[in-house]
Order: sequence, then structure tokens, then C-alpha cells
Amino acid sequence: MPSLRVGIIGAGSAVFSLRIIGDLIKAGIFPESGIVLMDVDRKRLENVGVLARRFNEESGGNMRFIETQNLDEAIRDSDYVVNTALVGGHEYLEKVRSIGEKHGYYRGVEAQEFNMVSDYYTFTNFNQLNYFVKIAQKIAELSPKAWLIQAANPVFEGVTLITRMVPDVNVVGFCHGHYGVHEIARSLGMDMNKLDWQVAGFNHAIWLNRFVYDGKDAYHLVENLESKDWKPTNPFDDQLSPMAFEMLRKYGMMPIGDTVRNSSWRYHRNLDTKKKWYGEPWGGVDSKAGWEWYRKWLEGVVNSIELVADYVKQHPREEIFEVNKLSEFLKSHGVPESVWKSVVRIAERDKMSAEQHVPFMMAVSAGIKQRLIVNIPNRGVLKDIPDDVVVEIPAIVDKNGIHPEEISPPLTDEVVRMYLYPRMTRMELAVRGFMERKFEYIKEILYRDPRTKSDDQVENTLQEIINLPENVGLKKHYLLS
Amino acid sequence: MPSLRVGIIGAGSAVFSLRIIGDLIKAGIFPESGIVLMDVDRKRLENVGVLARRFNEESGGNMRFIETQNLDEAIRDSDYVVNTALVGGHEYLEKVRSIGEKHGYYRGVEAQEFNMVSDYYTFTNFNQLNYFVKIAQKIAELSPKAWLIQAANPVFEGVTLITRMVPDVNVVGFCHGHYGVHEIARSLGMDMNKLDWQVAGFNHAIWLNRFVYDGKDAYHLVENLESKDWKPTNPFDDQLSPMAFEMLRKYGMMPIGDTVRNSSWRYHRNLDTKKKWYGEPWGGVDSKAGWEWYRKWLEGVVNSIELVADYVKQHPREEIFEVNKLSEFLKSHGVPESVWKSVVRIAERDKMSAEQHVPFMMAVSAGIKQRLIVNIPNRGVLKDIPDDVVVEIPAIVDKNGIHPEEISPPLTDEVVRMYLYPRMTRMELAVRGFMERKFEYIKEILYRDPRTKSDDQVENTLQEIINLPENVGLKKHYLLS
Repeated sequence: MPSLRVGIIGAGSAVFSLRIIGDLIKAGIFPESGIVLMDVDRKRLENVGVLARRFNEESGGNMRFIETQNLDEAIRDSDYVVNTALVGGHEYLEKVRSIGEKHGYYRGVEAQEFNMVSDYYTFTNFNQLNYFVKIAQKIAELSPKAWLIQAANPVFEGVTLITRMVPDVNVVGFCHGHYGVHEIARSLGMDMNKLDWQVAGFNHAIWLNRFVYDGKDAYHLVENLESKDWKPTNPFDDQLSPMAFEMLRKYGMMPIGDTVRNSSWRYHRNLDTKKKWYGEPWGGVDSKAGWEWYRKWLEGVVNSIELVADYVKQHPREEIFEVNKLSEFLKSHGVPESVWKSVVRIAERDKMSAEQHVPFMMAVSAGIKQRLIVNIPNRGVLKDIPDDVVVEIPAIVDKNGIHPEEISPPLTDEVVRMYLYPRMTRMELAVRGFMERKFEYIKEILYRDPRTKSDDQVENTLQEIINLPENVGLKKHYLLS
Repeated sequence: MPSLRVGIIGAGSAVFSLRIIGDLIKAGIFPESGIVLMDVDRKRLENVGVLARRFNEESGGNMRFIETQNLDEAIRDSDYVVNTALVGGHEYLEKVRSIGEKHGYYRGVEAQEFNMVSDYYTFTNFNQLNYFVKIAQKIAELSPKAWLIQAANPVFEGVTLITRMVPDVNVVGFCHGHYGVHEIARSLGMDMNKLDWQVAGFNHAIWLNRFVYDGKDAYHLVENLESKDWKPTNPFDDQLSPMAFEMLRKYGMMPIGDTVRNSSWRYHRNLDTKKKWYGEPWGGVDSKAGWEWYRKWLEGVVNSIELVADYVKQHPREEIFEVNKLSEFLKSHGVPESVWKSVVRIAERDKMSAEQHVPFMMAVSAGIKQRLIVNIPNRGVLKDIPDDVVVEIPAIVDKNGIHPEEISPPLTDEVVRMYLYPRMTRMELAVRGFMERKFEYIKEILYRDPRTKSDDQVENTLQEIINLPENVGLKKHYLLS
């Protein structure tokens, strides 16, 4: 059985790292694999190292771990490099958002064309895109046969950029937005094993093109799920929101996962509008309240991890990664339900996480065929989309690589021409701006923003952003200083 | 030698009709052809009939003419049906514009995505699009082998709509925007015979992809034409405006003809901005002053035609279609220079007009090969553009039909993905809205307009437009009443 070397960049996101480690152990075919945990945050790195070793021990695993702050070490000799890092963290996003709001851009300038707000950078985080390229280049140099697994956002811009700038590197992007399909199936009381489904599009812009249950087309059942009594349970809960059905009517297919958030400025113009389409009280995750909920939840997760890490250090012989024990422990420390419910999942020994990373490794390195939703260059899979644009599509993965499924029925023309094209144009502006060092293209994104009212507004906003201390590299790249 | 039957719809535009008739006579290969002049305006129709017969006589032509207000008559048994009609005329456009301005849309709601103002309807003139389809359907019924030559705007939306709704009809769209290339060549003192050039894109969105002089690439000479001392001689004079060079820098190719007007809202936001990019004093033709200039000029042309028609009626034996005589006559009646200079061109006996309609007939009906710039469905000519979208490209036309040239070098990715895609998305909204009777798509055009600030603004603007007396048909089509 193969043993792998897996580098995790941005491993300080402990829940994510533990999921990958857990999946590797549960897969049972990669014993004695080596995991290189890399992060620039020393404290977080220490915590994740402590937790990873204990988790491995308690799970009867045989993994080896290395903590490092050095990128080369995470890459050299690796079979897989998983990048999950968010350069600058959410703090940088909030800085940029507040600059945007100051200059008249409600909820900030970042957007996915059809969203206007989120942590999905398209153009304001030069350091993030630059780091993507740096990692890919280092892989080409230090570990040219490795697969780069892109988990960090923006997956659409990022994987497209990497495949264009470092074409020789094996790269695939993963997201879990397509689990929206499971949610729909659950709402219909369906058994996933009897469901024949496909989604296709771009990352955070995917659409349910096939929904066949027990051999019969079941799309009408999806349409019937619309309900006036619908209420969100949390700000992310929007798969069955009025917005999803509005988009279904407009584009002829059901939007899946984060796609629902990316509905366009028309549906995000102010809080009342957001509430109408994404439900009370938050109006979706892209409102002030929704985003605060998310930030608090994230903070809760980080704090929980620290609590658990401290516990582990103080109790070197006591088990903690057991669902009841872990949840009791977290509850006793006042961790709110939405947080502990999420954290305890890593202790579920009997099932793999929903992440696709380890299944991908199982397919490629052990030949255990998997059906995955991957982000790879289009190369003819989606009609009327250029070959060098990265699409999110179902594929069979095996030892020989990634084999995209035929998309059938195809996406509607409405999805492709009214929805995907504008999203693609924004990506092209960001990616080509970066590649050709043309800041003019970055500006153009804002000049085309429906909230822009004057040249000064654009120039002043961008001036303030590029002069942030974080953006020395950006200025140099675009020769702006 | 073949004699043709040509129907001209909207023949009341006398200059245009006389150009076609003149070209047919000058071509010298279609004697005894029959021209059916069709217009809904009785007065204009009478004038154009008088002028056409006299013009034919003075030119030694042998044409026969029929005036009619009946569409069927212009179509039945015709070899070519030329549609140049603007349903509702400019009056309707101005009505719609003033509604737009009242609701906060500077210079009106109509646009070509990258223009925001012009007589190029994309969605507010249902009657125009509907007439296109009606004509095509009548051709299919009454004269299925005829060619429909689409001269009326919007050529892009129109020809795309026709080819999708009435696929069996032979249709081609013509524009003269590509003469911008001649203007560039003239500025460089070049001999057109030594110039190897191509343009490609969509109608009013074409780009100079090839410019080879005497066997050598001469694109750098185009770039060098930029001058700080440039001044427009009239509002349409923008081929060498600062805007053209700004677009060249941004998209990597020179925009040709009306494309320069369609630069995007950023360059049309207010009069000062327009002046900066399109020159003083008008700020281009899409400003209030520029458009007034055009309307006045148009009015002058119409008045001149009436003057000449009256003269002809009163002087049945005197020649008038001779350049000096005609210009003296017009000058003596106080017709301004910009107008009479334009009108007298029809009297130039030695050269054909710049219109492509008759050369097209010469190629198809007499096998005299021509190189023309045509609007036809893409079908693989432009990379990354869907097959069923109509493109404007150079083609060789002969007895066997239209043979597109290979576009080499191809359009830049910047032109295709940053410029043509947004334009195409707008077309799709308009055309699919019409075809699927989804007014929601028409609304979406306005919801995506950068000037839209609220739902009410969109709804109130459109409500007022659809309630115009001209729009009974629109309401019925979209089931809005």
C-alpha cells in the first residue's frame, strides 16, 4: 500500500487539516503517510501539530507529522500539495471592505460579479493570487510530479491563473458547494444512491443540469420545493431560498451552493432586498449581520481548537476525539451549538468528511475510482466556453487522471450566455490584469461596477487599497510606485 | 444578363433608395430590373418614385418602378428584399429617450452595452424587431428563394433574431462601419489596393485584426496616428479620436467605425467625459448636441429630397442629377454644406456608392466575385463565440453564396472576452426575451444597467414605455395587458 507525502499549506485552519488527516486514516490505504503542516502563524501551527498527533494516535493511525513555516518544505518530495491558505486573513478583507464602503460601495468592492460581497477575492487580494502562482512554480521546481490541490478561494480565478501561468503543474480545484444537491435530495426524502445528478458551471456558479431519480426525470420535484413558509436556519442556508427559485425561473436551471449567493447586484442592493430574497433576519451571509454571524462562528471554531489543544497538552493520556466527550467538553466551555456541532464532526470515526481531497488521492494513487466534482480547464466539456477557462464539472478520477463526464443535458443557453459570461469576463479582467501586469484591467472591474458613479470614486478607492501596507508587492508587480 | 426584382422596404429614405438604384444602373449587368419601392409614408413614397424615375431616365437606365404601401408586394417574386425601415422613426426613439432621462437615465435607456445612446435599438423598439421577423416570415412564404438584405438597425440583434426564428430564409446584414479602415488608410496616405486588411466582431463592435501594407505589417503606423491636436470635423468623426486609441490600448486592437462610440458607460457618463474622449464641441454623436446635429442633418436631407422632387415635378424636361447642377440648386435653396455635399453624391455617375447591397447582388446573381463585410451566423469563424450568434466578418461572395475568410490573426482574447461577451449577453437578453416572450429578460437589461439605482426606477421606466400608444403590440406579445 502506498504511503504518501502530503503538504498542507495554511494548515493552521485546524478543522480542515484534521479532516484531511482523518480521511487519510479512515481510507485505510495510506498508512505511514507523512503530513507536512505548513502555516505562517506559529501559534496555530503548534496547536494543529498537537491535535494532529493526538488525533492520529487515538484513531490508531500511523501518520508522521512535520510542522513548518517554510513553504519549500511543504512542497519538496510531496505527492500532494493542498493549498488552503488565505493570505492576509479575513482582517485584510475587512480592511478592503471598509475602504469600499467609505467610497460608496455597499458591502465593499469585492464580488463575484453576481454577488458583490463575500470572502471570495477576485481582484483586491494580489497577495493571494501571487501566492497561488508562487506555490505552483515551486511545485514545478521542487516536486514536478506532485498534484496541487487548490482549496483556497478564489478557486475560479486561482485555478485558471495557475493553469495559464504554470501549465506543466498538475492542478485541480475543489469546493463543496455541490453538496447543495444532497440538501435538495434530503428535502425530497430521496436516497442519494438512486439519484443520478450532475452540476456544471464555474466554481460558485454551478447549476443542476441533471436530476434523475430511480430512472425518472425528477426536476419538477425540485421546482415544487418552493415554499412561502421557508425560513433560513443560518445565514448560509439559502439552497431553498426564494432567490434559488427566482434564478431557476430566470435561467432555466437550479443554482447550487454558493451560486445562490451570486445572484447579482439587483438582489443585493440593500438590506431589505437581501432579506426579501435570502430570508430574515440576516438577508443571507453577504449582509452585515450575516457576515458577522459567520465571523463569530469562525472565531468560535478557532477558540474551540485552542481549547482542545490546551486540553490535550494538559492531559497527555486522555482521549478527547470521541463525539460525546468532545461535545460535552466544548459545551462545558460555553461554545455555542452551531460551533461545537461543526467541530465534533472531526471525531466521527465511522465516516469520511465531505471533503474531496483524500478521495482524489485514493483515486490517483491507489486506483480506487471516484466520482468527484472538479475544477479543471474546460477543453471542450462545456459548449461555448473557451478551452482555457476553468470549469467545475463532474468527473471520474482514477490512476490515469481526471476524466470529465459528458454534461447531459447541457447547461441552458440562459445559464451560459446570461450568467456565466459576465462572471467569466470579470475573471478575465482579474487574471489578465495579473498576468499582463495591467492595472488598467483591475480598474476596469470597478469601472464596470454598477455602483460606480465617477472616475474619482474608482481612482480614490483603488489608491487607498494599493497604499495599504499589505500591498507593497502589488505596487511593485504593477509598477505603480 | 439577369434582370432582378428588388424590393426596398422603407424606401422613403430617398437617398438610400437612389443609391441602390444608381448602383444597379452603374453595375450595368441588371438592365430592366424592377424595383418595388415600399414605405408606409405616402408623401415620401411619392417623392422617391418621382426621383427614382427621373434618376433612371437621366442615367440612361432601363429600370421599372412600383410604389406600394403593401409589404407583400415588395416581397412577392423578389430576388432581393432590402429592409431599411425604422419603425416609428426617430420620433419614437426620442420619446423613449425622454422617458429614460426623466427616470434618471442620462441620454436614455437604449444602448449597445458599450454605448448607452444611439438610434441602435436593442430592446425598447419591439415593433422594429417584430417587423424584422414579419418580413422574414413573409419571404419564407411568398418568395422563399429571395435574399433578405438587412440594412436596418439593430443589425446584430436583428440578423441573429431572424436566423434563429426563420432559419430557412437567406439573410445577410450590411453596415458601412468598416469604411473606418479606409479613413485610417487615407490618413496614412496609403493606396487601398496595396492594403491587406480584415475587421471582425459584431456589428458596431468590429476590430481591425489585420493591417498589412505592401506585404509588411503596418499596425504600428495606426498606433502612431494618435495626435493631441486632433479635432473632430463633425460629431461622427471619431475614428481617430482619443477614444479609439484608448480602446486600442485596452483591447489590443483598433476599434473601427461605430465601435468607437460603443466604448462603455465609463466614457459616456456626462458631457465633460464625452468631450474629453470624443472631442469638442459635441463630445461625439451620442451627446445632446451631437445628436441634434445629426437630427438637423437628417432633416436637411429629407428637405433637400423634397426640394428636388418638387423641382422634378415642375421641370419635367430638365436634368437635375448632375453634380454641379444639383449642388448649385441645393445651395441656392440655403441647404447647408454638410447636407448638400452628402446629397449630391447620388449624382456621381462614375462611381458606385459605398453601399454593399448591389455588389452582393452582382456576386450572387451574376457570379462577379466580391469581397464584402457581411453579418452572418458565426458557425466557427470567430473562436470562442457561439455558432448561432451573428458576426460581422469579411467574406468572398459568389454564385454559390457567402464564404467567410479565415480571420487571421484572430481577435485578441481581450476583444472577445472583455468586449464582445458583454455585448453578446445584452443581445441574448433582448433576442431571447423576444423569442420566449419573457419580458423578465427585457427588464434584466435595465436591472444590469449601471445607472439603475432601484427596482422602482426600472419598473416605472418600463411601465411608461410599454404604455406608449406605439406599444400595444409589445404588451400583447409579452402578455402584459
